[in-house]
Amino acid sequence: MATKEKAIFSAMKKEVDAVVLMNAVEPNLDSCFFYATGLTSGLFEGCVAIVEPKRVEIITSELEALSAAEEGLKTAVFENNEVRMRMMKNKLSRYSRIGINAKELTVFNHRLIKRLSGGARLVDISHELSESRMIKQPDELSRIRKACRIASMACDAIPEMIGEGMTETEAAAELNYRMMMLGASASAFNSTVAFGAKSAEPHYTPSSKRRLRNGNFALFDFGAAYKRYVSDITRTFVCGSSSKRQREIHATVLNAQEAAIDAIEDGVSGAAVDDAARHVIDGGKYKGLFIHSTGHGLGISVHDPGSISSANDMTLKAGMVLTVEPGIYIKGYGGVRIEDDVLVTKGGCRILTSCSKDLRTL
Amino acid sequence: MATKEKAIFSAMKKEVDAVVLMNAVEPNLDSCFFYATGLTSGLFEGCVAIVEPKRVEIITSELEALSAAEEGLKTAVFENNEVRMRMMKNKLSRYSRIGINAKELTVFNHRLIKRLSGGARLVDISHELSESRMIKQPDELSRIRKACRIASMACDAIPEMIGEGMTETEAAAELNYRMMMLGASASAFNSTVAFGAKSAEPHYTPSSKRRLRNGNFALFDFGAAYKRYVSDITRTFVCGSSSKRQREIHATVLNAQEAAIDAIEDGVSGAAVDDAARHVIDGGKYKGLFIHSTGHGLGISVHDPGSISSANDMTLKAGMVLTVEPGIYIKGYGGVRIEDDVLVTKGGCRILTSCSKDLRTL
Repeated sequence: MATKEKAIFSAMKKEVDAVVLMNAVEPNLDSCFFYATGLTSGLFEGCVAIVEPKRVEIITSELEALSAAEEGLKTAVFENNEVRMRMMKNKLSRYSRIGINAKELTVFNHRLIKRLSGGARLVDISHELSESRMIKQPDELSRIRKACRIASMACDAIPEMIGEGMTETEAAAELNYRMMMLGASASAFNSTVAFGAKSAEPHYTPSSKRRLRNGNFALFDFGAAYKRYVSDITRTFVCGSSSKRQREIHATVLNAQEAAIDAIEDGVSGAAVDDAARHVIDGGKYKGLFIHSTGHGLGISVHDPGSISSANDMTLKAGMVLTVEPGIYIKGYGGVRIEDDVLVTKGGCRILTSCSKDLRTL
Repeated sequence: MATKEKAIFSAMKKEVDAVVLMNAVEPNLDSCFFYATGLTSGLFEGCVAIVEPKRVEIITSELEALSAAEEGLKTAVFENNEVRMRMMKNKLSRYSRIGINAKELTVFNHRLIKRLSGGARLVDISHELSESRMIKQPDELSRIRKACRIASMACDAIPEMIGEGMTETEAAAELNYRMMMLGASASAFNSTVAFGAKSAEPHYTPSSKRRLRNGNFALFDFGAAYKRYVSDITRTFVCGSSSKRQREIHATVLNAQEAAIDAIEDGVSGAAVDDAARHVIDGGKYKGLFIHSTGHGLGISVHDPGSISSANDMTLKAGMVLTVEPGIYIKGYGGVRIEDDVLVTKGGCRILTSCSKDLRTL
């Protein structure tokens, strides 16, 4: 994965001798650690990646030493914390300017790096790391594509897997199971399954108490992880037959989503794409009910760097992978969101998720 | 959950006006945010909990505002980053000494809190937060117990679910599915399923290529999450009939695990318990092959504060929940680990995981 070091350092505007990426305890792991090393197996709590322009070295615990060795990385293995500290001191004291990822490094580990390096200047390069991660490399794209294929197949199987009377948790279990049987390493995140009025909350957590009832919206927001890279899909269904209002909301969101997709191409601003979707929703009777931005970057994290939002001035570039996911949320009634993952290209974009966008019934 | 504020402030040796717990972007969420708020639904990226001795207030995005409201917490909802910044500034500028969790707060958010509070003194209270979290409260214990029951039931179903020819990923899918059908909110972590020689790596990630073969060890390390609290179980099986060597390794690990469990009680040092397990393994022909500590705290995180280790001087206290998980790992051959979750009591401990510890075959 020597291409990652190259990408990190070519995005660098600041002078540093090396970049040090350090994990704390789960969940506080640095996604750039995995980006830079390409490691697909293992947990790597408390482990350190030292990235120089032409090489990556890791300090790893015995708990995942075999996985690290298989990837062919230069690896130092510690048996305990004392040895880890000695290794860090030994290696970090060579540097006088160290790049760190302030967006994922903990305050505690920041102090540790400062101390063990003998007071090196720690330079925040989180912006450069984000820039580097936004343009996906071929090995990353192939993993994302696979994750998208798996989730799309699972999505198209929803009508055969999930029906009236099932709880949200059971439905999430079916989805997760299907993705893994199709080859996912894991679910990309805890799948959201929201029935009825709960579909109005974007980050809702499924309940083992709530059952799918006739007339309910059923919103599924989920993704597959494949070798640490992820997909992220949302589709909304109706249990039984849909009402006119449900069809109207769904059609509005779909129009908004397609307007956004049509607007995407290399060189366009994310704000313009957000506006294309928002214009459709805010131009009608559901004005103001699209309560989040249109999309976010996708890669090794579900919320990877980059966004399609009115709040920033990002320009879309060929090679970026982003979600496109407008929604309408009506408190006490329910919501609809439709989300695909796209790869930005020179003249437009390629849609990586292939499942049906019709308002299907369960 | 007013008991959590009380626990945090009664563990406090430093003077602070409030504790500020702030999430970054997934996976970099602060487990103390969820400990202090008790929130069971929602993601809460970029959200903030402000904990005073007698109240908790949260600054939350619209994406999980409904979940937050249902928990009855005092809540301020932001629609965008600008509003979030204004709310933080408004609330944080009241304080001159703010407690922060250096072990989970990112460097970036630390700077943000410093700036928006108008330069308040930020005091690291991660040690106090850990102390407070180690002694489990009744609501936490009941969630952990439920998570342990679910995982134990799934574990006892392994022989009926998993057999020769199945891949590690498929086996993990079966386990995860069973736990959710039994009422888990999610898997506690990406389940480890390791067949054959791969069982020698404690933090191995399952592969969709590796199939269970006759004579293989099959190691399963997994847990259920229930309302954000988790269990963590490991059991090792053999496919087909076991060899003498496999039975001997398994019996040694089981003896070590039972020696550790027998040694646990309020007032005993973690190091003494670790020694009890290690003495069994290092006293025989598998000397040196138990390459990690005997256990770790368990609660809202899989690796919660606290450990059973020779490397620290922690004293076990009634009310702590810990894993007990010695193992023997032989590179190129395979490994055995047996892990239970226990609640420390005055005169001993209560074992919360109930699945069989025999060397069963698949």
